[in-house]
Amino acid sequence: MLGQMMQHRLLVSSLLRHAERHHGGQLVVSRRVEGDIHRYTYRELAARSRRLARALAALGVSSGDRVGTLAWNGYRHLELYYAVSGSGAVLHTLNPRLHADQLVWIAEHAKDQVLCFDLTFLPLVESVAARLSSVRHFVLMSDRAHMPTYSTIPGLLCYEELVAAQDDRFDWPDFDENTASSLCYTSGTTGNPKGVLYSHRSTLLHSYASALPDALNLSARDAILPVVPMFHVNAWGLPYSACMVGAKLVLPGPGLDGQSLYELFESEGVTLSAGVPTVWQGLLGHVQKHGLRFSTMNRTVVGGAACPPAMLAIFEDTYGVQVIHAWGMTELSPLGTVGILKGDQLAWPKEQRRAVQSKQGRVLFGVDMKIVDADGEELPWDGKTSGDLLVRGPWVVSSYFNAANDSPLVADAVGNGWFPTGDVATIDAEGFMTITDRSKDVIKSGGEWIGSIDLENIAMAHPAVAMAACIAARHPKWDERPLLIVVTKPDAELTSHELLSFYEGKIAKWWTPDDVVFVDSIPLGATGKMLKHMLRDQFANHLLPKG
Amino acid sequence: MLGQMMQHRLLVSSLLRHAERHHGGQLVVSRRVEGDIHRYTYRELAARSRRLARALAALGVSSGDRVGTLAWNGYRHLELYYAVSGSGAVLHTLNPRLHADQLVWIAEHAKDQVLCFDLTFLPLVESVAARLSSVRHFVLMSDRAHMPTYSTIPGLLCYEELVAAQDDRFDWPDFDENTASSLCYTSGTTGNPKGVLYSHRSTLLHSYASALPDALNLSARDAILPVVPMFHVNAWGLPYSACMVGAKLVLPGPGLDGQSLYELFESEGVTLSAGVPTVWQGLLGHVQKHGLRFSTMNRTVVGGAACPPAMLAIFEDTYGVQVIHAWGMTELSPLGTVGILKGDQLAWPKEQRRAVQSKQGRVLFGVDMKIVDADGEELPWDGKTSGDLLVRGPWVVSSYFNAANDSPLVADAVGNGWFPTGDVATIDAEGFMTITDRSKDVIKSGGEWIGSIDLENIAMAHPAVAMAACIAARHPKWDERPLLIVVTKPDAELTSHELLSFYEGKIAKWWTPDDVVFVDSIPLGATGKMLKHMLRDQFANHLLPKG
Repeated sequence: MLGQMMQHRLLVSSLLRHAERHHGGQLVVSRRVEGDIHRYTYRELAARSRRLARALAALGVSSGDRVGTLAWNGYRHLELYYAVSGSGAVLHTLNPRLHADQLVWIAEHAKDQVLCFDLTFLPLVESVAARLSSVRHFVLMSDRAHMPTYSTIPGLLCYEELVAAQDDRFDWPDFDENTASSLCYTSGTTGNPKGVLYSHRSTLLHSYASALPDALNLSARDAILPVVPMFHVNAWGLPYSACMVGAKLVLPGPGLDGQSLYELFESEGVTLSAGVPTVWQGLLGHVQKHGLRFSTMNRTVVGGAACPPAMLAIFEDTYGVQVIHAWGMTELSPLGTVGILKGDQLAWPKEQRRAVQSKQGRVLFGVDMKIVDADGEELPWDGKTSGDLLVRGPWVVSSYFNAANDSPLVADAVGNGWFPTGDVATIDAEGFMTITDRSKDVIKSGGEWIGSIDLENIAMAHPAVAMAACIAARHPKWDERPLLIVVTKPDAELTSHELLSFYEGKIAKWWTPDDVVFVDSIPLGATGKMLKHMLRDQFANHLLPKG
Repeated sequence: MLGQMMQHRLLVSSLLRHAERHHGGQLVVSRRVEGDIHRYTYRELAARSRRLARALAALGVSSGDRVGTLAWNGYRHLELYYAVSGSGAVLHTLNPRLHADQLVWIAEHAKDQVLCFDLTFLPLVESVAARLSSVRHFVLMSDRAHMPTYSTIPGLLCYEELVAAQDDRFDWPDFDENTASSLCYTSGTTGNPKGVLYSHRSTLLHSYASALPDALNLSARDAILPVVPMFHVNAWGLPYSACMVGAKLVLPGPGLDGQSLYELFESEGVTLSAGVPTVWQGLLGHVQKHGLRFSTMNRTVVGGAACPPAMLAIFEDTYGVQVIHAWGMTELSPLGTVGILKGDQLAWPKEQRRAVQSKQGRVLFGVDMKIVDADGEELPWDGKTSGDLLVRGPWVVSSYFNAANDSPLVADAVGNGWFPTGDVATIDAEGFMTITDRSKDVIKSGGEWIGSIDLENIAMAHPAVAMAACIAARHPKWDERPLLIVVTKPDAELTSHELLSFYEGKIAKWWTPDDVVFVDSIPLGATGKMLKHMLRDQFANHLLPKG
């Protein structure tokens, strides 16, 4: 027997309609690529998004078509978020930091029909346009005054002219909430990029969950500045959740240095920001150097990589800014866990609380997780036992876009209802999860797992070490043993023995690396991650010392 | 094109599974009908709910069957919430405060197959059992020690024995999220009660929205005490949302007097409570009389009737407790609007803020509302123009349970996608709604509407008035004019002229009632509401003085 409640679909357009009707006067403030600050209201965002939806239809964009973007965080990008998805087409945010060849591969794989881009990326798009076989229209996201007098891109369109040519009479169509809304590619360290195709339903449920008090705690009293780019997993969903709660939205454009961000924080009364640790490093550097304070910011979301405990302490102790430690993946829309303390934990001593906050956190309602051993058996939540981390939920990927054959691992696990994150983690009795390694990086010594991240962190704490990677080397008796690859700081002197002695007392003795190799550099990927698979190839025949 | 995200259904059982896995150690504390305090964890709630689900199956309860309850707020009632809905059956919470004949009518209309009830209601159930033709099993929600030695109910079952007979190995079934989960009847002042049949989807979406920071702001750091009964629109959804966020749940059983509640607030560290104004009147009376303070409670949800401004001021100014003014209906699951200030409003002077808080509030994301004139045309949001209030959204009723023909008004409006609340309201520019009347009580004078609630509030503020109702009387020139029906306080003396003079300066002159009739009593319904339709019948031929 079915309930007798209204059938209202969870659609991206309903977020915009809500923002317009119930928070119409709320502001969206953008630092433009053109240099100045632009301000308007949700009411104007909604009206311009409708005009843009008409313009897209006039360009022949129809349901399911992919519209690519190469753009910073700004109001035009936001209009595309709503106009494209709201129309039933698919917003495909491309990461301009990728290599041009990779961009072409992704746009071709996605079969983008339209490509919209900021002025910044005109040279980039000009250099690849001829290779983008599916793109029928190139749109420069600016006004006539900023259009180039000549471009190698044939028929280059002007965003503001497209919008100006339409009126705002447009009714957002109603359709199946499982319809695709947006597409993000995740570029792993190996293999081709993989596309994650979000739905309207997954986006809306993710918005509800991420706005909850124990997640990002979003309200109409917030002014949110997402430093995390809108081309990076939809800026962690903030362009959607801000409309859901009616928060002010402050979009920093290309100005991601400490000074530009700090100015916006202060001038716009920002209460909440969100970004990766390296951005905060720059911001804190600026604030410390000039003896500044945050007068309105009361919390910041740190994700994308683990938040260093020292950064957490500075934010909270020195600046009174709460750090919200979050973990997610492109495949999770992205939020999976958030490190908000539970009631009992609030009364714990500071050090103990900090230890909990340094973990990756507990799940948002909707997501479930578990850790399993090699046979897929669930492992205990004791904060010590580590295993492969699996997740499931309505905003977790079920299969990759246009992937003829997903990796057998994904297909298998998803068949059982769980997505294998590729991370190795522990979970404690309160449900707080800690990532200890990537599963492909874990070192299996005599049947036991050794986490490479812990070993690298210890090496990095040595004053003479600039960078350290720990990989598995083959061992006749133990199958694998840890091998440390190290880049020392300029002019620093360090021996293997000195460095290995540094591990004493810091870790179980049998976890200590068997050997150290000093190198000039460690290969890094486009997003700054160490390419350990290249190191593994390079040191495949490394002979460990007897011991 | 569909997105490629996991298909996870929004089911009530997922709330319990989440609470068990991620907040397993969190407490549920109940004041039992038997008199003592009972404590256990979400882990035990989940295990006992699974045993209960097996017990229900053993009694022959299957998908879609209705299981009725007559019970206070307590852990056994909570187990029924999850076991019944989680199994795919329908939890039907009956209101024990209704007249026995009405209860029988409702249980017969719902065709309840099982009836579970607290010890308190044994005499009530014994008195009506023979008339409940569809009920196959009567279950007393207690243990063997409290079972009566003899009962007129044949085959009376013992709840604890049913649970003890089962183990907890039970997998919650997976099914369409639009499946009915629970049923509540709303007893209007006229006509038969109407059943609202909630779905798993509507319940889950309502939980997400109601837990948001701008709604009830629920987290794992809360200890929630719902004074609002679990037989009254699912205690405003708190038994569900508490599991969603992992909050401690404190269930007061039958002890709803000021002293019993205050004791639980303090002993259990309650941070949030929820109930109707009359309950708070009792609580505040107790607290004031004994010079007490609230040491942990920081906010309280007031709904069911408008919160008197004086109560709001006492809670906030004297006791530092934030009042969350909420509006809803059985037909809305129940939450529609919540009176949480927006960012700009926080800086307003106190009086102005209070005026906003006294309104019924702004919508939760998911619900939309509008006010319309007699032709269905949308009216402006100026805080002055009043019109019929319509709502829509995924947790709004679409039709009543087993109703052969809904009222034409409902059918019509729902056909257009909007539910007519029967309320008359204004909405201001910020989206804050204020109820000014029930539409059937509004007075139409010369084509203009006069709100009866305002006129009654003024009369009630006169020191000699005990109760006042304002109804429409027929008028040859203006069609309708306000007529005031008044019960004076014992020994008070009051003339029509004195009372009407009292309106001067308080309201537009043409709103002043044309006449006053003094009566000994005003008829009240079961829930304490004035039965104005009876007054309208009684004074149908009242002759207004010429004027």
